[in-house]
Amino acid sequence: MKLDSAGLQVLSYEECIRLLAGCPIGRIVFTDRALPAVQPVNFCLDGEDIVIRTTVGSKLAAATRRTVVAFEVDEFDPVARTGWSVTVVGHARAAEDPAEIERLAALPLTPWAPGSRDHFIVIATEQVSGRRLTQPG
Amino acid sequence: MKLDSAGLQVLSYEECIRLLAGCPIGRIVFTDRALPAVQPVNFCLDGEDIVIRTTVGSKLAAATRRTVVAFEVDEFDPVARTGWSVTVVGHARAAEDPAEIERLAALPLTPWAPGSRDHFIVIATEQVSGRRLTQPG
Repeated sequence: MKLDSAGLQVLSYEECIRLLAGCPIGRIVFTDRALPAVQPVNFCLDGEDIVIRTTVGSKLAAATRRTVVAFEVDEFDPVARTGWSVTVVGHARAAEDPAEIERLAALPLTPWAPGSRDHFIVIATEQVSGRRLTQPG
Repeated sequence: MKLDSAGLQVLSYEECIRLLAGCPIGRIVFTDRALPAVQPVNFCLDGEDIVIRTTVGSKLAAATRRTVVAFEVDEFDPVARTGWSVTVVGHARAAEDPAEIERLAALPLTPWAPGSRDHFIVIATEQVSGRRLTQPG
């Protein structure tokens, strides 16, 4: 078991992808008017790419066009003080090809938020890191 | 009830602070080597400031010195597809005054991660926004 400098267990790439695949909500981290911004979104994986469904005019759509974003999922148990987190860093793009949009629309990805959300943001899983926090004993 | 352009309920400042105060884990959003970065941390409030306890040599300590960061807490119910999130944006600083460090060390803030963590990061709650997602019916 590999530990990082903070004493957290370093998760393998395969474990990170498995945890990502099992999580319905993640947080997209981007820059909004030169300030750090973060927004929770429901998502699904398309292979190892992260797919988010939003509205074409949304702040999120505008802020994540052709830029590098981070995407984080986690799960913590406040009583046991244990948990894990996985962070992806990669290029985000809007799906523009009609054939790709049709394919993405068939994914099991129903927006939680109201309104028509037929704009797809795809984040390439370029860097993946994950950590697990356990307690001794 | 005020809704934003995405149809989410806009939370009041007081509601945001109440939700922040009840959450043991948040995510600090910053820049690491020019890339967006995000890290879950346990925290507590000192008045309306966010206080995080880390090690002096950590990446987090280095990346959040005299800079603007975002800090996010949320809670979602994947079955009901409801939840809320609160995001703070503000200046982060390291506590350096011995009297302040002594005061912060007395807060009910025990690090979940192992190791000696006597370096305090304080985030000023300068901008606060919160949203709640409900489902009709």
